Amino acid sequence: MDERSALRLLAADLPAAGDDAAVVNGLVVTTDMLHETTDFPTGTTRYTAGWRAVAASLSDVAAMGADATAAVAAYGAPTLDETELRDFVRGAREACEAAGADYVGGDLDTHGEFTVATTALGETDAPILRSGATPGDVVCVTGALGRSAAALRAFDAGDHDRANDLFRFTPRVAAGVALRPHATAAMDSSDGLARSLHQLADASDCGFEVEWDAVPVHDAVTDYARDPDDERAMIAYFGEDFELVFTLPAGAVSAVRDALSVPLTVVGDVTREGVLADDVPLPDEGYTHADD
Amino acid sequence: MDERSALRLLAADLPAAGDDAAVVNGLVVTTDMLHETTDFPTGTTRYTAGWRAVAASLSDVAAMGADATAAVAAYGAPTLDETELRDFVRGAREACEAAGADYVGGDLDTHGEFTVATTALGETDAPILRSGATPGDVVCVTGALGRSAAALRAFDAGDHDRANDLFRFTPRVAAGVALRPHATAAMDSSDGLARSLHQLADASDCGFEVEWDAVPVHDAVTDYARDPDDERAMIAYFGEDFELVFTLPAGAVSAVRDALSVPLTVVGDVTREGVLADDVPLPDEGYTHADD
Repeated sequence: MDERSALRLLAADLPAAGDDAAVVNGLVVTTDMLHETTDFPTGTTRYTAGWRAVAASLSDVAAMGADATAAVAAYGAPTLDETELRDFVRGAREACEAAGADYVGGDLDTHGEFTVATTALGETDAPILRSGATPGDVVCVTGALGRSAAALRAFDAGDHDRANDLFRFTPRVAAGVALRPHATAAMDSSDGLARSLHQLADASDCGFEVEWDAVPVHDAVTDYARDPDDERAMIAYFGEDFELVFTLPAGAVSAVRDALSVPLTVVGDVTREGVLADDVPLPDEGYTHADD
Repeated sequence: MDERSALRLLAADLPAAGDDAAVVNGLVVTTDMLHETTDFPTGTTRYTAGWRAVAASLSDVAAMGADATAAVAAYGAPTLDETELRDFVRGAREACEAAGADYVGGDLDTHGEFTVATTALGETDAPILRSGATPGDVVCVTGALGRSAAALRAFDAGDHDRANDLFRFTPRVAAGVALRPHATAAMDSSDGLARSLHQLADASDCGFEVEWDAVPVHDAVTDYARDPDDERAMIAYFGEDFELVFTLPAGAVSAVRDALSVPLTVVGDVTREGVLADDVPLPDEGYTHADD
């Protein structure tokens, strides 16, 4: 069974399950498990790991347009080194602070492989779902794409300081809250722009037409992309960027842009069917992560 | 650094952190990571693993005297087998149902070792802490002790059906809620009766005098204990039983017993200092689990 089928199974028959997160009586809950082999390349500091793991869960809260309230982290490692653990907790706490949430503790497990499981909590009376995009809306992203792909290249190149810096993204919680009154659909870009558009199209029964030139490219991508095709792979297929991909009535763009403290870029339009980039079908594919 | 020191570090500077769980504005949050080598002996079914992992987190909610509202589980395994995953989810959901909580989903991770991380949520305006035990109170336990120790023996003996049955304990959420108006201190017995008493003594700045003959022994213990010393090890040091250990004013015992649907046993008294069993110091030790 592939991971997407398994995720559908895990979510089946769960009336409380939302899109990026579950919503129960206004309480938003989301959990993630990350581990060294696939999620923390050689050179990732424990500070960055704590930050990134907690931020990944907070990003799911952001995608629902919810306020983030708290997060916990379970830390598994072969040895419980005090410096590493302190650094991890500092990263987890600072990621929470960046999202207006409280880091409220966790669990420890002596584990053969460095493994982190995080849970983030939020609150909203009216979550943004994936299902409300309507032809005539525009489709937008926050920030710029390709940051995590560039981080991986930086780790490979031995530029560990830069790589760690790129890996510590700010979860878009404030943006999600500001979007909530206007957005018709939203999710985060953790699976990449291409897969995100396909998932929004499936959930909303619509299509998309985007323009490659409109997609905002993170500065670091240009330092590592080998050619234009590689750049597209980094910004649209690699994923793990944790920006928000969302749809808005065209008339709301200006008001929403004013309400956000991060850049908002319109990358295309919501259509009746098909997912196209520069009039060519955009494949529903992402980077094949090491053990997916 | 040993695990207890590391846990103190993980909880340091966390004003929201409670005892068995964190409490933030009446919301109770607790997380646990379990993995195959130390927590799921050969013969443990995925159904049992799902049940037990979620129930372990719900037990922490119970120890705060909180209502359980929801739980999530992140599932990591080398392969995503559909039958195994369905069984796991069924176990997780049924453990939630046994505690009056909703199972609201989770995450998947292709992981070298079968690993589960669970988070449970609850609600209470007045959590039971570990710090309120007062000399003159009595100390009590719910149910009977030694169930998980007996389960391990059953796994070792190849009695897998019985072992799985023993491993699927009912988290004492209803008991915790019924205790809340009366209990002066509480925690769960996951570290064993001996360590639990020492932890309550430290938190409440008190002592305990218990009687071995008063400690309720699970029926299965008598089937596997090799001798009386072994039986004591199984009921007081092995741990992982997830019963509640709590203190009450002596005058409240009868009312609390009537309010509980599980047996309540008075095992001793709260004193000024020292933790004694039959007038002999009870060591602050537990079973050394494989990788602690």
